[in-house]
Amino acid sequence: MTTQFDNVTVLKKGNVYFDGKCVSHTVIFADGTKKTLGVILPSSLTFNTGAPEIMEINGGSCNVRLKGEDAWKTYAAGTSFNVPGDSSFEIEVTETVDYVCHFG
Amino acid sequence: MTTQFDNVTVLKKGNVYFDGKCVSHTVIFADGTKKTLGVILPSSLTFNTGAPEIMEINGGSCNVRLKGEDAWKTYAAGTSFNVPGDSSFEIEVTETVDYVCHFG
Repeated sequence: MTTQFDNVTVLKKGNVYFDGKCVSHTVIFADGTKKTLGVILPSSLTFNTGAPEIMEINGGSCNVRLKGEDAWKTYAAGTSFNVPGDSSFEIEVTETVDYVCHFG
Repeated sequence: MTTQFDNVTVLKKGNVYFDGKCVSHTVIFADGTKKTLGVILPSSLTFNTGAPEIMEINGGSCNVRLKGEDAWKTYAAGTSFNVPGDSSFEIEVTETVDYVCHFG
């Protein structure tokens, strides 16, 4: 797993969600695709998806339950999970999470 | 003022200060210089500097008092202020601030 993205564009304006529990910055790649690079502080939140997402966890730890599932699964640095489009997931962040969100 | 940085490297791991009141991501330019791109949520904080800094404000609003000064000054989008090295500044963020911190 790489620790950085090279040769990208990054938007100066951040994205702030849930009163700052989640802060991200948008990265645009040479092929026009976008990803967001963010931090989620310890909290229990529900995120809704538009496009399908892959959440790559690069630091911290969290428990996640996808919409329609009964089980919570734990994700830490070096793991990732997929979220369908037009869906949602609950996340309990137990240790501040660094993530990259891949869309589509 | 540009709204983005092009052809840069961005580190996936964020920087979290003051229990998440300040979250930034590190950007590295082709010449090796670094800047941080961040958000400060409404709060009253004191930042210490190592290297001299230029704080470029790209969104929100804040009142700032440099160490050794009596007066507070207000900064909003499109403005910036200089902080000497080995010094500090107090900041009262009244509306969530987007900033770029230039070092050296």
